[in-house]
Amino acid sequence: MAELKETLLERREVFRGRVLTLFLDRVRLPDGREATREVLRHPGAVAVVAQRDDGRVVLVRQFRHAVGQELLELPAGKLGPGEDPLDCARRELEEETGYRAGRWERLGSFLTSPGFTDEIMHLFLARELVPGWHRPDDDEFLEVVEADPAELLRTGGILDGKSILGLLLLGRS
Amino acid sequence: MAELKETLLERREVFRGRVLTLFLDRVRLPDGREATREVLRHPGAVAVVAQRDDGRVVLVRQFRHAVGQELLELPAGKLGPGEDPLDCARRELEEETGYRAGRWERLGSFLTSPGFTDEIMHLFLARELVPGWHRPDDDEFLEVVEADPAELLRTGGILDGKSILGLLLLGRS
Repeated sequence: MAELKETLLERREVFRGRVLTLFLDRVRLPDGREATREVLRHPGAVAVVAQRDDGRVVLVRQFRHAVGQELLELPAGKLGPGEDPLDCARRELEEETGYRAGRWERLGSFLTSPGFTDEIMHLFLARELVPGWHRPDDDEFLEVVEADPAELLRTGGILDGKSILGLLLLGRS
Repeated sequence: MAELKETLLERREVFRGRVLTLFLDRVRLPDGREATREVLRHPGAVAVVAQRDDGRVVLVRQFRHAVGQELLELPAGKLGPGEDPLDCARRELEEETGYRAGRWERLGSFLTSPGFTDEIMHLFLARELVPGWHRPDDDEFLEVVEADPAELLRTGGILDGKSILGLLLLGRS
């Protein structure tokens, strides 16, 4: 098997924000040469496929500044320091949609873009939904939307990767 | 329908790298208050589900410095300035795996992590594979792996989101 590993030689923090930290790393390549790598540290996140008893899923529509448009997405949020992903999923589902769930399952975890970031996304399936307390974060403005998951996939109205992935995994669960 | 749009008030470039550009933006929220947004500009990328006549798919194993481990992924790469995604897909498939494909289909596009980046990923399905010219980029070290797509999904050995998504879409195509 080929030697593929890169070794970190030097790390320089070029930006530390509220959410993201960006590093410029110098690495040694497997053949001994050097290269630079731009690396974005992310705290990780969760997303929830919340399915009602009638089969419809609960989504949120929100404006995403990074892409300059409104997107329809699964309820989701970033992990707090040391936070358990399931606790985070429960919190985000209730804050963003007003639902609590009686039954939780893990759908899996994936890396969103491992070429430049360590962001990991944990996907959960939430069922047996009951009303909770709806209270979005201070700087979150969103609209709750309920829709048929097969229809959402068929019409292609979802651009967000984690949401497409979650709905595809729901179809296989 | 609720007003969800955020308006850009001020943009500050905090880092410009070889691949990524990071901005710190001040925005006006729908309720009139202000907030900051960390935004990563990305050139966009492609990934290819390359399926052999025997049903197996062609993947690449490479060390991903951002996550500190080797990952099994679809052949993929970043778009050059103004590059057509299909041209990029053809180029990356051949560079990374040594295959050319006689038949190309678009599987769809998705945003990898729209909470902080505009990165868009274009997924293609490539069939009728024939040998081409294998020549990875100078700083790419990778190993070509051929495997059964259903088996890959069942065993959970793939952590990369675009690759899971591509294999799930292959199963539906």
